[in-house]
Amino acid sequence: MKNLLTRRSIRRYSDRPVADELLERLLAEASRTQTMGNLQLYSVVVTRSAEMKEMLSPAHFNQPMVREAPVVLTICADFNRTTQWALNRKGHPGYDNMLSFMNAATDALLYTQTLCNLMDEEGLGYCYLGTTLYQPGQIIDILQLPRLTFPVATLTVGWPDECPPMSDRLSTDSFIHHETYRDYTPESIDAFYTAKEQLAENCEFVKVNGKETLAQVFTDIRYTRADNESISAQLLQALRRQGFEPSTSIGDEE
Amino acid sequence: MKNLLTRRSIRRYSDRPVADELLERLLAEASRTQTMGNLQLYSVVVTRSAEMKEMLSPAHFNQPMVREAPVVLTICADFNRTTQWALNRKGHPGYDNMLSFMNAATDALLYTQTLCNLMDEEGLGYCYLGTTLYQPGQIIDILQLPRLTFPVATLTVGWPDECPPMSDRLSTDSFIHHETYRDYTPESIDAFYTAKEQLAENCEFVKVNGKETLAQVFTDIRYTRADNESISAQLLQALRRQGFEPSTSIGDEE
Repeated sequence: MKNLLTRRSIRRYSDRPVADELLERLLAEASRTQTMGNLQLYSVVVTRSAEMKEMLSPAHFNQPMVREAPVVLTICADFNRTTQWALNRKGHPGYDNMLSFMNAATDALLYTQTLCNLMDEEGLGYCYLGTTLYQPGQIIDILQLPRLTFPVATLTVGWPDECPPMSDRLSTDSFIHHETYRDYTPESIDAFYTAKEQLAENCEFVKVNGKETLAQVFTDIRYTRADNESISAQLLQALRRQGFEPSTSIGDEE
Repeated sequence: MKNLLTRRSIRRYSDRPVADELLERLLAEASRTQTMGNLQLYSVVVTRSAEMKEMLSPAHFNQPMVREAPVVLTICADFNRTTQWALNRKGHPGYDNMLSFMNAATDALLYTQTLCNLMDEEGLGYCYLGTTLYQPGQIIDILQLPRLTFPVATLTVGWPDECPPMSDRLSTDSFIHHETYRDYTPESIDAFYTAKEQLAENCEFVKVNGKETLAQVFTDIRYTRADNESISAQLLQALRRQGFEPSTSIGDEE
């Protein structure tokens, strides 16, 4: 697959516009991705207006790519369209629950990744913003996402104006298991992580963060228990608000 | 991207073996996919043994591909490896919560889709089994998946021994929104779904299922409220069992 082995996330974009025709073609081609029951349980909100980018920016912790990219794509899990279809066709939709959210999120994420691979092939740059799950309520308000939709991924898109170093990856041994899951031991953890920990950029990363180990930068600074727990609570609240009841209580009747 | 526009799910496989070298190369290449904080929050369990396929089969409602495919891949959201790493490096991991599950599931699904796109390019056939989320508890037991891992996707893989018709897709108009989400109306639903409903195979599908509309086949037979609600309850129970607490209560200390 062209450019996959040299891909990097691109956060700075040139002035060259991203043509509507190109974007439309890639969004259409990505829809060949498999989808549950061929229901295509996703929607894409395309943001080009400076005003909307400005509004979205705080939801992504003001990462500059949101304001600066020619295009921002918010990919949503979407059971609204299918539900509307069913209601207009004497059906009895029952998709206000956790399984349905996961099914739609799956469809949306698989679609997103085919789109990313297509953009790599075209030489388009993009950055995947994991922040989408951190403040979904803001994104829902700004993009006016109705009940039974939920933003699961954001891509900032444009022609690259940088060529950052490629990031390292763990060896396949570390994440492939044969027949059953072979749990990790202190020895296998050393075998799988030592090379990563010894990279010059990671040593520097530990130093500038004032920590003793690389893992501590992640657990104590970037992705802490306190943040994860408070954001989890907001995520569950946003799921409930959008009608995907994340508990075992019976949801609303459609 | 080679073969994307003619892709179909493949459920029947030839006797030609899937070489370990090829599979290993594709699993490695797919790891170039972006991942949260470069943590690679996924694992892949490779099933080749007939005995393990036999055991997995009921978890996938005995769909024959599971027994018949040369290879079955179960892709898991995995915060166990990262947590083990952190515990061995004086870190303080706090990933036993819903946000962390969603982050790991996202990593796992993006990885899965790059792998699918790579398999398409090689001409390998695969079928994505959405049933993974339906009885995760069984899969967890069979594959011995530890706490902080969760199966999110299964692929049956082999060289194609069939060439089924391609499935239809909705027009991009139906799922692309500009600047804000434009909700659907009875008129737009008609515009987006009528072509699909009039396809000969879909008319036949309605008829053999004894229903009046295509949407009813989905809502009243294939993906019913009763099933969705009972499976949602099991899904939440399995998330809790694996340590990804799907409520706002404080999780266990690591």
